[in-house]
Amino acid sequence: MPDKALLQSIHAEALPLIGQGHVANYIPALAGVSANRLGIAICSAGGGVVGAGDYLEPFSIQSISKVFSLVQAITLYEEQEMWSRVGKEPSGNPFNSLVQLEFEHGIPRNPFINAGALVVADMLQGRLSAPKHRMLELVRELSGNPNIYSDKMVAKSEYDHSARNAAICYLMKSFGNFENDVDEVMKSYFNHCAIRMSCADLARAFFFLANKGVCLEGRRLIGERHSRQINALLATSGLYDGAGEFAYRVGMPGKSGVGGGIVAVIPGEMSVCVWSPELDESGNSLAGTRMLELLAKRLGRSIF
Amino acid sequence: MPDKALLQSIHAEALPLIGQGHVANYIPALAGVSANRLGIAICSAGGGVVGAGDYLEPFSIQSISKVFSLVQAITLYEEQEMWSRVGKEPSGNPFNSLVQLEFEHGIPRNPFINAGALVVADMLQGRLSAPKHRMLELVRELSGNPNIYSDKMVAKSEYDHSARNAAICYLMKSFGNFENDVDEVMKSYFNHCAIRMSCADLARAFFFLANKGVCLEGRRLIGERHSRQINALLATSGLYDGAGEFAYRVGMPGKSGVGGGIVAVIPGEMSVCVWSPELDESGNSLAGTRMLELLAKRLGRSIF
Amino acid sequence: MPDKALLQSIHAEALPLIGQGHVANYIPALAGVSANRLGIAICSAGGGVVGAGDYLEPFSIQSISKVFSLVQAITLYEEQEMWSRVGKEPSGNPFNSLVQLEFEHGIPRNPFINAGALVVADMLQGRLSAPKHRMLELVRELSGNPNIYSDKMVAKSEYDHSARNAAICYLMKSFGNFENDVDEVMKSYFNHCAIRMSCADLARAFFFLANKGVCLEGRRLIGERHSRQINALLATSGLYDGAGEFAYRVGMPGKSGVGGGIVAVIPGEMSVCVWSPELDESGNSLAGTRMLELLAKRLGRSIF
Amino acid sequence: MPDKALLQSIHAEALPLIGQGHVANYIPALAGVSANRLGIAICSAGGGVVGAGDYLEPFSIQSISKVFSLVQAITLYEEQEMWSRVGKEPSGNPFNSLVQLEFEHGIPRNPFINAGALVVADMLQGRLSAPKHRMLELVRELSGNPNIYSDKMVAKSEYDHSARNAAICYLMKSFGNFENDVDEVMKSYFNHCAIRMSCADLARAFFFLANKGVCLEGRRLIGERHSRQINALLATSGLYDGAGEFAYRVGMPGKSGVGGGIVAVIPGEMSVCVWSPELDESGNSLAGTRMLELLAKRLGRSIF
Repeated sequence: MPDKALLQSIHAEALPLIGQGHVANYIPALAGVSANRLGIAICSAGGGVVGAGDYLEPFSIQSISKVFSLVQAITLYEEQEMWSRVGKEPSGNPFNSLVQLEFEHGIPRNPFINAGALVVADMLQGRLSAPKHRMLELVRELSGNPNIYSDKMVAKSEYDHSARNAAICYLMKSFGNFENDVDEVMKSYFNHCAIRMSCADLARAFFFLANKGVCLEGRRLIGERHSRQINALLATSGLYDGAGEFAYRVGMPGKSGVGGGIVAVIPGEMSVCVWSPELDESGNSLAGTRMLELLAKRLGRSIF
Repeated sequence: MPDKALLQSIHAEALPLIGQGHVANYIPALAGVSANRLGIAICSAGGGVVGAGDYLEPFSIQSISKVFSLVQAITLYEEQEMWSRVGKEPSGNPFNSLVQLEFEHGIPRNPFINAGALVVADMLQGRLSAPKHRMLELVRELSGNPNIYSDKMVAKSEYDHSARNAAICYLMKSFGNFENDVDEVMKSYFNHCAIRMSCADLARAFFFLANKGVCLEGRRLIGERHSRQINALLATSGLYDGAGEFAYRVGMPGKSGVGGGIVAVIPGEMSVCVWSPELDESGNSLAGTRMLELLAKRLGRSIF
Repeated sequence: MPDKALLQSIHAEALPLIGQGHVANYIPALAGVSANRLGIAICSAGGGVVGAGDYLEPFSIQSISKVFSLVQAITLYEEQEMWSRVGKEPSGNPFNSLVQLEFEHGIPRNPFINAGALVVADMLQGRLSAPKHRMLELVRELSGNPNIYSDKMVAKSEYDHSARNAAICYLMKSFGNFENDVDEVMKSYFNHCAIRMSCADLARAFFFLANKGVCLEGRRLIGERHSRQINALLATSGLYDGAGEFAYRVGMPGKSGVGGGIVAVIPGEMSVCVWSPELDESGNSLAGTRMLELLAKRLGRSIF
Repeated sequence: MPDKALLQSIHAEALPLIGQGHVANYIPALAGVSANRLGIAICSAGGGVVGAGDYLEPFSIQSISKVFSLVQAITLYEEQEMWSRVGKEPSGNPFNSLVQLEFEHGIPRNPFINAGALVVADMLQGRLSAPKHRMLELVRELSGNPNIYSDKMVAKSEYDHSARNAAICYLMKSFGNFENDVDEVMKSYFNHCAIRMSCADLARAFFFLANKGVCLEGRRLIGERHSRQINALLATSGLYDGAGEFAYRVGMPGKSGVGGGIVAVIPGEMSVCVWSPELDESGNSLAGTRMLELLAKRLGRSIF
């Protein structure tokens, strides 16, 4: 298992990359984040959490929340119903997000692109009485941190710039694949995106995917088969249009967010979270990806 | 390691699927194949090859040849040169193959879609004096079978129906990403596709990807890092537009061909090849995929 | 000038086409229209209105209202401002309506596709205090019929099936090309579409386009240049994806609606309106187009 | 009818636009043309040809040749056969030329986009024993100029940069809509494009479209109906992706070429040709379009 010294050396090696990417600026609330943050944390069966750099500082988890939503939906819906509304395939590059949705009759390609996550949010809205509250409960339990909260200013800022997401929702509605009120679902969705967690929180929270579905504190969250399936979806679709490059360089199932966080998993061994706000061209953390690449190399570990 | 009895039981369980798919019929030479074939073979470090069903009967490897071509190109080109001409990302669904190529300036998304494999064939044509001969040498060595040959009638039949592939080549040429004569490159390419190998041959030939780049008979074909990288590309792009579903159900890097073959790898453990000519909607062997799913389940093995 | 006998003979010749098209059924309120209606009316400078068949029966004008909206916008906005928000080019076939809008940064191709008409409606909403009322005033004045009204049930039915139009509005909003509340604008837009007019009403109302911008009763509605320009836009974009075929067969600027109406103009001579609810594959009235084709042939008139 | 003084004044007014466009440079042979040329010629029933500026200097007619090819095809094929292989609708913007062809099963939208003209060339190849010779005969007859020839260097240069056109031909072949050898057809096609004619030649040659199908010297080339139909196709599709703007500003059926020529027609009155090598963003002659706009304004003539 990696010790603190290893993580510190990886942190030091990735530090010079800061300044070479771009902080997400599509909403003002995210554009104000300090660019020079860099953190890494690992959670393993025996050793608990080890970290380096800014691994205790909370940040906006953004699209990483899509994994938590998927987990909730998987526990609420039958497999067939679930996958009749969202696919399992990579989506190709983003230029054609809307036309793809149009051609494929309003069924998004996978749960990790916006369209897919919005359908999942719509599914949760139909079954949960208080989706925002339930999400907070889940991430607090998984990370063992009762202080996690969703940043209302960030959620509001996202909502104020939500025209494109609204277009996606209404297009799916026109195909009969969106049931609830668009505004309400988007509010839940942005609330989930605006949750703030640290690398340590997220490494703990994702440990279940390295542990066949069982959480850090011992509760079985999902079955082993579901855990494998989520890892499979993350491996093919978790990194926007950089999934192939990430598999090639890092070789772990993972999920990134525009807040600069990336979670990754070595099944059977550990969960990892890295954070650095500057993004590469695919929208994934630049220095974060580098830290994961270095970790895979130093440990001689990947799923391939 | 799986024994013959296990493979026979898997074979028996998948047998009833025959009749539910469709044999590829875009060229007459393939349409004539007997639909009721079903074979599986596994190659592991200690145990050599074990098989069941029609695992010794040769079939047209088709797109599986793209992996051999990629291996050749990787050994002939520097990493940067290689990946400046072809990408590493999944391609999304096939409707937009040409427009995608157009938007991305003639750079195919990955080496396993036709456009990508044709660029790789163009690269080989530029460096190898006798590409067809060299390919045969390679597959004969890897499988330890000196009798492997390419079916000239199938290659000819593919060439006679090559207008769409020619369109792809010329579109790439218009972007400056195709250097050699289109006809010559296509002839090599179809020659590779028309190679006939059995499940046993292919399981042996792909063992290097389960063995960190070292072939069955001990020669290092490619470096360990390259082996992992190829597995990563296979996991995200090896199964046409069914890569996500395949990862979800089977959980192994793999490559399929329209001849009905699928090779798959559990890194560090074994290489597998299944064959059954009837295909599902994504163009992957229907009963073959089922056998791999059963194998993963029975062994409790996947990369996730 | 055509007399009643000519129109009756054209009517008789087109009558057998009834039964060969399909009444628009995307909203229940339209699907209930009697399919066997067929009317034609002509309005010329000296002769007033002549008609045959059901030319006095009101029907839902639907997209024909887009011309009235454009006329209003042209009188309210400077040319440059007007055409910076909507283009003048034909749109090609409908499959790519959303991707085209995406590629062209939220600027619709022309004012006669839905996206363009919705932008025009947004522009009117920004300048008119009571857009629905103003539209009724305009069409009542132009046709000299104070009894024209908008069918609230049809408007409501359209609104209840407006998810796709909402998707279009929000996509344009995401590009900064939609200023007002989407719901309000759509309500005005559907209200305009649901206006009911007869062939006689519409022939009169469109006379200004045959008369260099001057209405039937003598008021100058728009300048001569504007009148020519609107005819030009109608000639290239007025018939959905059938503009080329319509120009080829009929040879007049025109505008169709899914209610089965088509208005057409021979500049300097006459305005025409035909109506028959059954549509062809492009969404244009089947028997209506035939009547216009026969009229052009009998009169030896077209703009070409 | 316009006299020389009018044309000279229009020429003088458009002259300052030179320097604001860009000469086509996709092939070296065209890039070498002098940019500062400006010519206009008109041909009317009674008055023969009147011109101003460089109206006697030959230039590369390029896509204007597509009209001559269409005329030949119309005389060789039945209407139904003709229009089953190429459509009549505008094509929308060029980004999707290949995907549009793919979606529409290899049937090009109209005979004036490259795909359509290549299909027409394929049709001529199937019926004419010496297509290049026959084309020269036709244009020499229509213009009354026996010295017209095709510039072999330009044709060769086009052929050397024909990868994209080859891609289009092979894509159509893959759909069964291309019968002859791609190379041979492209050679004929480029030969037609490389024909050199002056404004005076072209104004004369296009007079038949202003004269219901009867050539300047009196021979009926095509029927009156065909003449109207070709004008209709020119009005909706003759100016690349600038047909709507051209109709709006000029209001005449027309056809442009990347050599900087534009021919236009006022049916029943006159044919016009303008030339200036610098193009606007849509690929149409910048100063040429302006001269046509001024002509329409001064004469108070348009088809609308």
